[in-house]
Amino acid sequence: MNRERNEREVEGWRPATKIPVSVLGATGTVGQRFVRRLADHPWFELRHLAASEKSTGKRFSEACSWRLALHGEDEHYAGRGAQVLVPCTPEAAAAPLVFSALDSAAARELEPRFAEAGCLVFSNASAYRMEADVPLLIPEVNAEHLALLEAQRRRTGWSGGIVCNPNCTATILSVALAPLERAFGIEQVLVTSMQALSGAGHPGVPSLDATGNVVPFIREEEDKMATEPQKMLGALRGGAIELAPFLVSALCHRVPVVDGHTEAVSVKLRGAPSPEAVRKALATWRPAATHGLPSAPRATLRIHDAEDRPQARLDVESERGMTVHVGRIRACAVLGVKFVLLGHNAERGAAGASVLNAELAVREGHLS
Amino acid sequence: MNRERNEREVEGWRPATKIPVSVLGATGTVGQRFVRRLADHPWFELRHLAASEKSTGKRFSEACSWRLALHGEDEHYAGRGAQVLVPCTPEAAAAPLVFSALDSAAARELEPRFAEAGCLVFSNASAYRMEADVPLLIPEVNAEHLALLEAQRRRTGWSGGIVCNPNCTATILSVALAPLERAFGIEQVLVTSMQALSGAGHPGVPSLDATGNVVPFIREEEDKMATEPQKMLGALRGGAIELAPFLVSALCHRVPVVDGHTEAVSVKLRGAPSPEAVRKALATWRPAATHGLPSAPRATLRIHDAEDRPQARLDVESERGMTVHVGRIRACAVLGVKFVLLGHNAERGAAGASVLNAELAVREGHLS
Amino acid sequence: MNRERNEREVEGWRPATKIPVSVLGATGTVGQRFVRRLADHPWFELRHLAASEKSTGKRFSEACSWRLALHGEDEHYAGRGAQVLVPCTPEAAAAPLVFSALDSAAARELEPRFAEAGCLVFSNASAYRMEADVPLLIPEVNAEHLALLEAQRRRTGWSGGIVCNPNCTATILSVALAPLERAFGIEQVLVTSMQALSGAGHPGVPSLDATGNVVPFIREEEDKMATEPQKMLGALRGGAIELAPFLVSALCHRVPVVDGHTEAVSVKLRGAPSPEAVRKALATWRPAATHGLPSAPRATLRIHDAEDRPQARLDVESERGMTVHVGRIRACAVLGVKFVLLGHNAERGAAGASVLNAELAVREGHLS
Amino acid sequence: MNRERNEREVEGWRPATKIPVSVLGATGTVGQRFVRRLADHPWFELRHLAASEKSTGKRFSEACSWRLALHGEDEHYAGRGAQVLVPCTPEAAAAPLVFSALDSAAARELEPRFAEAGCLVFSNASAYRMEADVPLLIPEVNAEHLALLEAQRRRTGWSGGIVCNPNCTATILSVALAPLERAFGIEQVLVTSMQALSGAGHPGVPSLDATGNVVPFIREEEDKMATEPQKMLGALRGGAIELAPFLVSALCHRVPVVDGHTEAVSVKLRGAPSPEAVRKALATWRPAATHGLPSAPRATLRIHDAEDRPQARLDVESERGMTVHVGRIRACAVLGVKFVLLGHNAERGAAGASVLNAELAVREGHLS
Repeated sequence: MNRERNEREVEGWRPATKIPVSVLGATGTVGQRFVRRLADHPWFELRHLAASEKSTGKRFSEACSWRLALHGEDEHYAGRGAQVLVPCTPEAAAAPLVFSALDSAAARELEPRFAEAGCLVFSNASAYRMEADVPLLIPEVNAEHLALLEAQRRRTGWSGGIVCNPNCTATILSVALAPLERAFGIEQVLVTSMQALSGAGHPGVPSLDATGNVVPFIREEEDKMATEPQKMLGALRGGAIELAPFLVSALCHRVPVVDGHTEAVSVKLRGAPSPEAVRKALATWRPAATHGLPSAPRATLRIHDAEDRPQARLDVESERGMTVHVGRIRACAVLGVKFVLLGHNAERGAAGASVLNAELAVREGHLS
Repeated sequence: MNRERNEREVEGWRPATKIPVSVLGATGTVGQRFVRRLADHPWFELRHLAASEKSTGKRFSEACSWRLALHGEDEHYAGRGAQVLVPCTPEAAAAPLVFSALDSAAARELEPRFAEAGCLVFSNASAYRMEADVPLLIPEVNAEHLALLEAQRRRTGWSGGIVCNPNCTATILSVALAPLERAFGIEQVLVTSMQALSGAGHPGVPSLDATGNVVPFIREEEDKMATEPQKMLGALRGGAIELAPFLVSALCHRVPVVDGHTEAVSVKLRGAPSPEAVRKALATWRPAATHGLPSAPRATLRIHDAEDRPQARLDVESERGMTVHVGRIRACAVLGVKFVLLGHNAERGAAGASVLNAELAVREGHLS
Repeated sequence: MNRERNEREVEGWRPATKIPVSVLGATGTVGQRFVRRLADHPWFELRHLAASEKSTGKRFSEACSWRLALHGEDEHYAGRGAQVLVPCTPEAAAAPLVFSALDSAAARELEPRFAEAGCLVFSNASAYRMEADVPLLIPEVNAEHLALLEAQRRRTGWSGGIVCNPNCTATILSVALAPLERAFGIEQVLVTSMQALSGAGHPGVPSLDATGNVVPFIREEEDKMATEPQKMLGALRGGAIELAPFLVSALCHRVPVVDGHTEAVSVKLRGAPSPEAVRKALATWRPAATHGLPSAPRATLRIHDAEDRPQARLDVESERGMTVHVGRIRACAVLGVKFVLLGHNAERGAAGASVLNAELAVREGHLS
Repeated sequence: MNRERNEREVEGWRPATKIPVSVLGATGTVGQRFVRRLADHPWFELRHLAASEKSTGKRFSEACSWRLALHGEDEHYAGRGAQVLVPCTPEAAAAPLVFSALDSAAARELEPRFAEAGCLVFSNASAYRMEADVPLLIPEVNAEHLALLEAQRRRTGWSGGIVCNPNCTATILSVALAPLERAFGIEQVLVTSMQALSGAGHPGVPSLDATGNVVPFIREEEDKMATEPQKMLGALRGGAIELAPFLVSALCHRVPVVDGHTEAVSVKLRGAPSPEAVRKALATWRPAATHGLPSAPRATLRIHDAEDRPQARLDVESERGMTVHVGRIRACAVLGVKFVLLGHNAERGAAGASVLNAELAVREGHLS
């Protein structure tokens, strides 16, 4: 595969013909983002919009209310308002690539059926994230984890497979941790999240709870934060992931921000590097795996030097939400260094993440 | 003094006659809270409202816009709208007790002049907080620090004195740390704050920066958080404070909440007590010093067991903003235990704090 | 009855013993407000908390989450957290006075059963508001409409009865219109509402729809605004209401405010009085019917002279939310005069309204 | 000139070479929007960024904080962060086209100096809007008013001139009124605005006033609304504007929305057309004057049929903020027809408006 990868890395690689794709759970807020990203994708052709029974047979614009803000000259429903929704079954919605915005329970049942039917499923659900042979993929961080697909196919007999993107909050954190793990080695991470409302979907958080308030609890979020990063940053050894050995403690909060998770992070790194050394490691990180992928941002990490940045309102939409922003890198009296992160929970942490994963998988030759 | 204190601790102690008090900087948001608390105080008689030159001679209601929400049957301006403002000079505004809501620069210049004139100044400003012989007082935490006033008077020759309340964010933290320091001893504290807009006063944070946003920076706040708790929790030895030796690292943020700072805290305690032991230490803490003081809450700390509490919108006004709320006490993989705090930045952290300080000082016989 | 009324109008009248009351739909946001108002009511004794099947048998604190902000020394659940919920049936929850926070469908079915069982039902639901013999009551505006109860009892054979409070937005408007109708006569009303989130209950409006947004639609609201005021301000003639003949056109919007409906009003009055004359009519209005009732505000209408008041954040909680605020009375080039109103949708427009209605009914001798 | 216009109307017309332009008041929020629009404009070349004395000589990124949210791949400061600011004088900042984001006082003094120096000034300030010979221009509404420039030049002797865009709230209203005035004739307009925070600039509205609140007052706004539309919709007769004779009464409010003014409008039209007829007049309006101008939206008016649209959060950024959205067209019991409008106050109502005006003026041959 390495040879092939090298060839494909040449800028300008693209599939010979557009690849048909489906979206499962198209009516939800992440599903809508999938549709928007895929409606005019240079490599993919959006074929099926699949939804739950109560929406099947309706037109997309009848089955749901479009919750995404228009920018530039976008149309609501990304021009797909008239498309008729199909059931979330392989019979109705199979395609070489399938994007899943299903909730965890539905994902647990349906995603394997698509994988068995030969589809490569890119899932935003948590159902299979921690399975040993399911890649928990962020292309810039652990592109090599895609190799787990072989083990997965051996175990299951599927001709397709399942590739997960991590929890949104864990993704944003892990993108910033990746160069630190490489450069220094991570020992401990303490992270306090201030998470956006869109992370809970629609209807999601009631406005009476959100307005002028901080809610210090998000169900299961702290557990995901405590376990997913070690898999993402784990090493692929002998066809399996060896979890990275650092500790993560997360304190998760909901704040009245529409899009964009802010994370206040303190880390203990091996060798206790200075904030300047940490800044340099972050600033000079040049992940190669996404070079030439259509959804990859020019800068995976952007370092802000202004004392009061990044800010969700100002920065979160840059590069279609695919950049993770870092600011205020400074000494931490307790763990060594601290900084603030901002990322788009619903793009870098959900829809954009899965589309980028699929682009990588296609270029790396994992399409069955 | 001990004998006297014991006598005075009897419930129902009160000064023989109401003590005249002044408010410096009455037109600002903290000044307005001072006026509201003092307008019908059982021990104090609000005499002078003092303000900067441009307001002097105007009526209170002309000089400023009342920014406090009405509750119950309050009146705007606490019934003092017609009172004429005087200059912030001892000649115009001296009283046995003086409450200062001045900004730091004005406080640095003016507070000593009042102290020299025999006034006991209770200051919300940061100007003199870290002076070795100025009490940084939270009655429930370090009532004995009031004894510093003697050293202060010796050094300065003042017949009055200056007593400071700490930074609002540091106050809320220190109230929760106090029983942990007593019960276990603190080694390290990592705290991420999500601070309310009212902490910046009026006009304060522009709405374009606050709305739907998190600003990861508050000038000088992290420094205050890193130094004030050690003084507050320090031991009085030989007439001086021995700083408590623990480390605090703070990461401060502004969030779109009107009143109420939320703080996500992780602590490393000596002996690594369990979350249950920590909960018990917090729940059984019964600070005695404020018993019988008019502004003291029934519960200085309130433990919440609901998984999603405390919340600013629901809890911050309880007991006129004088309670510090604790929730979600649980294990922290990095430092041992973590929890969330909520306190009213402008009452427990500012106006209410200074009024409570004055009540303690009066009962303890520190009025010159 | 008139003689009796005069006697009872004497300040200090109260029922000989506390009257047992029930709350139907106690777990919702209006239900919680009923509980808070009734838990320590001087005339009433809160006996039953009734809820839907899924809550019956649970303790109040288990069955719902308390959504009301604490003020002063309130307790969550108003001290009734341990009370066990009963079904919404007369068998389980009958009392001389019953307060209904049921939704409209449930109210339509259940309220008549309580009325038949002899209960006097004070309903916040819309189900029976426009029935010809159901009083649509605001004590300061149309206390005499209570006489409809006699016709209602004749028609239905009930020993109890149903008394409705109007839609919240219509209530706030009608309180301000009442003195104008008396003083001048109203011809046309054009009102644009900016309504608070709590008007939709909990979960109510999703935060993704509310945050930083104005939603220009509230289902059925404009229709209620167009019809209820004419009934409220109608004259009781021959035992029936003669609708007031003016026209109301309403344009209703949801805005990101927690409590407090703001209404921008233009009115065409007979004789085209000047803004000064209108101000005088509003300022000198002294509704007598609520004199001495425990939930009546000292001022039903409060006129604000500051150019930028009233404001929801600052004014809405005054007098426990029972005052309607008027500001910016000025000439309207189109209809003659315009002004802005603010009222507490969930107190003056819901829970407080019904409790005040019950107080009036009790004092006026309508308890069966 | 007519012949020339016809030639220029051909799609694809553009100036032979890019025209140098300057921005006065570049550091404010409208100034920043001018810079963003002009930095890569197909017809214009952004030459000078001018600011007040305290910023002169500084680089753009030092002199101010960029307040615009990033979308797509924008850069902060639109790539002009390093450009050195010049004084707001013709000596330093003259260019054939000058865009003024000055405040009204500065505009009054400085704009005539630029006009005298031969610059065509496109001003967002209110200073000269109501001058008889200054066009108050919305290209789709009154392109022919540009002819006033000739009278203006005769009166003043300027070789340049001043063209104003109207107040933002009045612009949004007038765009929707224009086809109604043409189709039916307008008699009365009653409009309640719910205006965004960005309309007040930065720092603008304090967050303590904005959060969870409605402020029922915006200085001078109602006066502008009552007079500017009649000039905009006035007829050019004999080289002067004959004001349209309808009445406008405005009730203006500030709401916690970042961008996008919502306006609830009732209108009385000649002949009392049905809502359907009004909808048709709005939907079929095809203003020709902006055809081919780079900043013109494809749809100047967009009709929404969803019952709860338009909404600021979802719709305001469409077509770079240059579309005015209309929804909920329905009968009004008082004035005949009512509807809701939404427009981008800072683009359609400010920066985008002036740039579009300049494009029209250039194509129409008004550049001196």
